[in-house]
Amino acid sequence: MKIVVDAMGGDYAPVNIIAGAIEAIKEYQVCICFVGQQDRIEAELKKYSYPKELVEIVHAPEVVEMDDHAAVAIRQKRKSSITIGIGLLKKGGYDAFVSAGNTGAVVAASTIVLGMIPGVDRPGIGCVIPSLKNFNLMIDMGANTAAKPEHLLQYAKMGRIYVQEVIGRADPKVGLLNIGSEEGKGTGLEKEAYKLLEENIKSFIGNVEANEIYTGKADCIVCDGYVGNVALKVSEGLMESVGTLMKREIKKNPIAILGALLLKNSLSEARKSIDYAEYGGAPLLGVDGLVIIGHGRSSPKAVKNAIRCAKSEVEHNILAKIKEVL
Amino acid sequence: MKIVVDAMGGDYAPVNIIAGAIEAIKEYQVCICFVGQQDRIEAELKKYSYPKELVEIVHAPEVVEMDDHAAVAIRQKRKSSITIGIGLLKKGGYDAFVSAGNTGAVVAASTIVLGMIPGVDRPGIGCVIPSLKNFNLMIDMGANTAAKPEHLLQYAKMGRIYVQEVIGRADPKVGLLNIGSEEGKGTGLEKEAYKLLEENIKSFIGNVEANEIYTGKADCIVCDGYVGNVALKVSEGLMESVGTLMKREIKKNPIAILGALLLKNSLSEARKSIDYAEYGGAPLLGVDGLVIIGHGRSSPKAVKNAIRCAKSEVEHNILAKIKEVL
Repeated sequence: MKIVVDAMGGDYAPVNIIAGAIEAIKEYQVCICFVGQQDRIEAELKKYSYPKELVEIVHAPEVVEMDDHAAVAIRQKRKSSITIGIGLLKKGGYDAFVSAGNTGAVVAASTIVLGMIPGVDRPGIGCVIPSLKNFNLMIDMGANTAAKPEHLLQYAKMGRIYVQEVIGRADPKVGLLNIGSEEGKGTGLEKEAYKLLEENIKSFIGNVEANEIYTGKADCIVCDGYVGNVALKVSEGLMESVGTLMKREIKKNPIAILGALLLKNSLSEARKSIDYAEYGGAPLLGVDGLVIIGHGRSSPKAVKNAIRCAKSEVEHNILAKIKEVL
Repeated sequence: MKIVVDAMGGDYAPVNIIAGAIEAIKEYQVCICFVGQQDRIEAELKKYSYPKELVEIVHAPEVVEMDDHAAVAIRQKRKSSITIGIGLLKKGGYDAFVSAGNTGAVVAASTIVLGMIPGVDRPGIGCVIPSLKNFNLMIDMGANTAAKPEHLLQYAKMGRIYVQEVIGRADPKVGLLNIGSEEGKGTGLEKEAYKLLEENIKSFIGNVEANEIYTGKADCIVCDGYVGNVALKVSEGLMESVGTLMKREIKKNPIAILGALLLKNSLSEARKSIDYAEYGGAPLLGVDGLVIIGHGRSSPKAVKNAIRCAKSEVEHNILAKIKEVL
């Protein structure tokens, strides 16, 4: 198995990317093709000992910055690690592409270079989210911010397969993110999508309200990319703010500091089950190739886990299975 | 000051509503007019001792249930506590209306009975949200799920006045909730709203991403009601799930239980600063009258604080000030 990794993508690239990929090579024996500025990749690689036969480097002189405008970056930086990396996947001989870089650019380049799977109009970013019960998939997290009802139906079909094959749960329940529980709630998009899902997805359980996302009510939650992106980022921001707030309160009181020390293990266990880095990568579903998007602030662990996701998608032959259903 | 309180609104009505209102009467010496089923109100009131001259009861035989369809409820239950209560505010002699009942029905009845303030097209629910720095206002949290750019500008104008007068902060910074930080991000709504806000609001600071909501970056964040509702409910659901998860981990380990006991005070301080019940009420801005919406699951404390919000809005003459600017 050969996985193409964007060595230049992410806030801490290439350092964290290469650190995580080296861990993945050792743990999973996958072959990694780093795409990016060759001198910088080589300089990083020198820090590690690893089986040389599992590493390949493809030079890409240009770097898409995290705040570059996606469409402009794709047009103007034709020799970026993103475009060249996805080009390798398209050409063949490689199984998946992993990037923690500019999400918009990865989505745009994947759509243009790989094309869409027949029967899918728009790509969707699936995000594996923790819940009180287990991991579930939410799609779309921001690839498509003007979703139409039929896009949500396509997301549901693809998402079900992902949950079934990669997360490993039989007959996944599909829910529609909405602002009320009854049919007829929401905007025109949700009303229409509700009907389509009801007609076409046997395991459709109806609306899921935003306060139910983390309860595990649905195995696959579909939504417009704009709303999904907000839901994801609110969660991230809230956890950070609450963490900061708790630390601030605890520091005021020596007894609380002792309490926090005693709690440390339990809290880190709890934290582990809600940490995106533990899952690592978000599949870009709908494009004709396996593309995994990592968080821009990916730690080495998150990069390693994104590669694990890629490996798992390859092993489960997820692309062929999606094509079969759509 | 006379505040009309919907005694039948909320999951724990009339019990929590009357308990909270009695606390408010004692603490703030406001006069409360309870609207609802007279016998049930009287039965609850018997539990308390309170200055009788500060309590009035207006009978409303019908009850809008929390899951009633808003428009249908308003049409069919013309003698509900919501419709009669808002009618009292319209008639005069009362200063504000507080309800923890069916939000959609309160919004619809307020719009129909009170009418809009000239210059405002749609009402918006403002939600006072805690941040690492202080309290801020986010508007709209779900009154208007098909917002147009000019609605967001109206929300910004009203929200600024609320933050300035009621929360008490000079020259509040206004931000636009969006999925990216740069101008040009988002859907057509956000792109157009960005221009309008830039042209009309001096203290406009640009886009605020959803992970920045709780950082205090903006004093007033404007957004479409659908997105605002999702953001609010995701936050609620996440805090609940994390709480459940932490308890589950802590229970596994006796040392952690001891740690949690030592931490209790600090955690409850931290919790207090993010607890909606501490703030209590969400102002419905844009309608021609002071309406405060409480959380459906309001505790007595939340009800008391919603009445405190109402009192504060009356004292700061917020309605006249909004009319002046719009």
